[in-house]
Amino acid sequence: MSTKKAPHRLYLNENEIPTRWYNLRADMKEQPDPMLLPNGVPAKEEDIYPVFCKQLAHQELDGETRWIDIPDEVLEVYKVYRPSPLCRAYNLEKALDTPAKIYYKFEGNNTSGSHKLNSAIAQAYYAKDEGLRGLTTETGAGQWGTALSEAAAYFGLELIVYMVKVSYNQKPFRKAIMETFDAKVIASPSDTTNVGRAILAADADDGGSLGTAISEAVEVAVTTEGYRYVLGSVLNQVLLHQSVIGLEAALALEKLDEYPDIIIGCAGGGSNLGGLIAPFMRDKILGKADPRIVAVEPASCPSFTRGKYAYDFCDTGKTTPLAKMYTLGSGFKPSANHAGGLRYHGMSPILSKLYHDGYMEAVAAEQTAVFEAAKQFAKLETILPAPESAHAIRAAADEALRCKETGEAKTILFGLTGTGYFDMTAYSQYNEGTMTDRIPTDEELAASLEGLPKNL
Amino acid sequence: MSTKKAPHRLYLNENEIPTRWYNLRADMKEQPDPMLLPNGVPAKEEDIYPVFCKQLAHQELDGETRWIDIPDEVLEVYKVYRPSPLCRAYNLEKALDTPAKIYYKFEGNNTSGSHKLNSAIAQAYYAKDEGLRGLTTETGAGQWGTALSEAAAYFGLELIVYMVKVSYNQKPFRKAIMETFDAKVIASPSDTTNVGRAILAADADDGGSLGTAISEAVEVAVTTEGYRYVLGSVLNQVLLHQSVIGLEAALALEKLDEYPDIIIGCAGGGSNLGGLIAPFMRDKILGKADPRIVAVEPASCPSFTRGKYAYDFCDTGKTTPLAKMYTLGSGFKPSANHAGGLRYHGMSPILSKLYHDGYMEAVAAEQTAVFEAAKQFAKLETILPAPESAHAIRAAADEALRCKETGEAKTILFGLTGTGYFDMTAYSQYNEGTMTDRIPTDEELAASLEGLPKNL
Repeated sequence: MSTKKAPHRLYLNENEIPTRWYNLRADMKEQPDPMLLPNGVPAKEEDIYPVFCKQLAHQELDGETRWIDIPDEVLEVYKVYRPSPLCRAYNLEKALDTPAKIYYKFEGNNTSGSHKLNSAIAQAYYAKDEGLRGLTTETGAGQWGTALSEAAAYFGLELIVYMVKVSYNQKPFRKAIMETFDAKVIASPSDTTNVGRAILAADADDGGSLGTAISEAVEVAVTTEGYRYVLGSVLNQVLLHQSVIGLEAALALEKLDEYPDIIIGCAGGGSNLGGLIAPFMRDKILGKADPRIVAVEPASCPSFTRGKYAYDFCDTGKTTPLAKMYTLGSGFKPSANHAGGLRYHGMSPILSKLYHDGYMEAVAAEQTAVFEAAKQFAKLETILPAPESAHAIRAAADEALRCKETGEAKTILFGLTGTGYFDMTAYSQYNEGTMTDRIPTDEELAASLEGLPKNL
Repeated sequence: MSTKKAPHRLYLNENEIPTRWYNLRADMKEQPDPMLLPNGVPAKEEDIYPVFCKQLAHQELDGETRWIDIPDEVLEVYKVYRPSPLCRAYNLEKALDTPAKIYYKFEGNNTSGSHKLNSAIAQAYYAKDEGLRGLTTETGAGQWGTALSEAAAYFGLELIVYMVKVSYNQKPFRKAIMETFDAKVIASPSDTTNVGRAILAADADDGGSLGTAISEAVEVAVTTEGYRYVLGSVLNQVLLHQSVIGLEAALALEKLDEYPDIIIGCAGGGSNLGGLIAPFMRDKILGKADPRIVAVEPASCPSFTRGKYAYDFCDTGKTTPLAKMYTLGSGFKPSANHAGGLRYHGMSPILSKLYHDGYMEAVAAEQTAVFEAAKQFAKLETILPAPESAHAIRAAADEALRCKETGEAKTILFGLTGTGYFDMTAYSQYNEGTMTDRIPTDEELAASLEGLPKNL
């Protein structure tokens, strides 16, 4: 146990920002099952060039290279907003009256307001480096769209963002911030794609989903000269880029002579969780340490806790390659839970494999309990958390309360992925007592999973 | 000139956060003219006890104590979100192709999104320490109201915020965040006070002003048991608390072997500017250095550049004591400029005195030029600035461009007071080309100044 007194916020020096990403796959005992083309054949790098730029396609399929140098141009931008602080939640510990030590890695100190910028910068850089003209993507809550807008503006790339229509309407300011970075923002489903037009023909009032927005963005990328598609989560390349979160956290804890007993992260597609846990999962796989690793997902979209580990499409339009992952079925429609970043039907194949093999746990949290934790945290720690991040706060507080019961002074680390400045509608609903959450019934999930691709 | 390579963001260690506030008045050659009661007699500490809690009343009138210990309870909260980074704007320098070195002190890394928290925490602490039950205040853009909500929640105080009605309607999310911290937010003018009722009787559609909101907040404070009034700018006590900005900036620059040739801050009531420049102004007064110090105000509300140095009321209702300051007249109605935090008719008496005595310069900036600078900055430095802060960016960029012409490698320091997450309506207007700015005519200003108290 550490005898050092941790500061409230520990910032590494600029020269301690990681210069290499860590590729967790290189240390996994078993690799995640391969990405498949719609015909069932494992995808080769060239197969996905129409969608992803070459270096990203390579990273996506590279399960062997343990350390990958971060390009200087990416590092130069990381230095503008990183390192992010490792914070000790002294006030929360005191309020919970727990013997546990609670640390959190805060990734919200940049304009995008979240960790998403770590991968956005990398993806935009590789696209620019290949001489591309523009990018397409989708966004739900808007964190990824904002981060990518920022990255695209920085590298001088055009950007088209398909934004889930319910979010587009609920969050006009998210659109405004993307437009401030000169991105073109389109409500999805839209009449700009075949996929979108087909969905609107079936239901003109369709509010959209991440899966649909992905279909539209991919369609535009593969049919527009000089364009490629990028994604902010789920993919192996994204977890690779996000490893900077975990590497910084591990180094900061090392300076404090600390090692976490429990590591907690919210999980939608897995971008934050996969990045945060990377070095600790490595220790676990290599037998050097045995921390508990906990994914927290919304009860309204419970891929880990109630989904199936199976091959599925990454999008609703069934146009993408197939991934083996925990999924609720690509046609799953989550309720209008405000943690928009956690409303995806699937989950990172890397994390899915680790969860399947028993390296991780998962819990589901209900929205009102999550906002209760968010509000308490905001008052004590002077950060207003994003609803997504607040799932991790909820679970961390629950673990700390368990420590209070048992008297164990465990060290907890959780990922505070971003700020909630653009989520005030949800906070208002919580403040006014009108917040709701709809948990899918077993019948609904079974029906949705019926649509999984067969014979894979 | 420094030979050290500055990091993009320099964070001091937790133990380098100032433990004392610096009271600039103690080093001024001439003191600011005293605060007067409405009868023209200088206010004594006891005179203002009905409005301010005792320790703050003392700080308000204390022109002698050079260093004032920051209470442990306040320091404990500072540690949660401070030190704030001193940033080097390498990307902006490159884009402007300037030999100048541009540094900025970024105060937006806390939930309130601005520097306002530095004084809010202090004021809430002293109120709690005196055993008070609650506080009242006003807010324009919402930064101060948010900061004080956060501080009041932390110390367990009730809070009533009078929010200028135009802002209240334009910025529902500002209201939501204050309510998340359990503040009661009332649109001003309101029917909850005599002042408000009188104004509404004259014009039911009155959109409010900071001056009116102050009148209402003061009225409630002095008529409610266990309540006092607090203010986020203008006052001497506020500049005192905000000295942490300048003290941290000076120490960080010292570590880099740097000293600024030009120090720039936006100025509404003067809270940020007064705090940022404090140690540098001290050097200037004591003859140890001679930096240029530049206040930037909006052309729509030009107290320094077109106002009069005279005794005036701090509020529209003429209920407060009188301050000698640069003022546009307490009845001045600024146009609906979106930099709501800079729309006050008056200016800090300390800064007014220094400006009057030739220690400072002032420039006025037009809104579209300010947003042009804001957008460029956001793309290059990954921080979306508040419109208020962007006034300082505009002036810093202009100075850097002047350096390009002259070839001088000057060192520029400006204050980046906060983030623009709640100002997306203004950004949208700028993006869409519908932003306007109305500069008062000479006749309007003359008419407004006619209303100044006579014979003082």
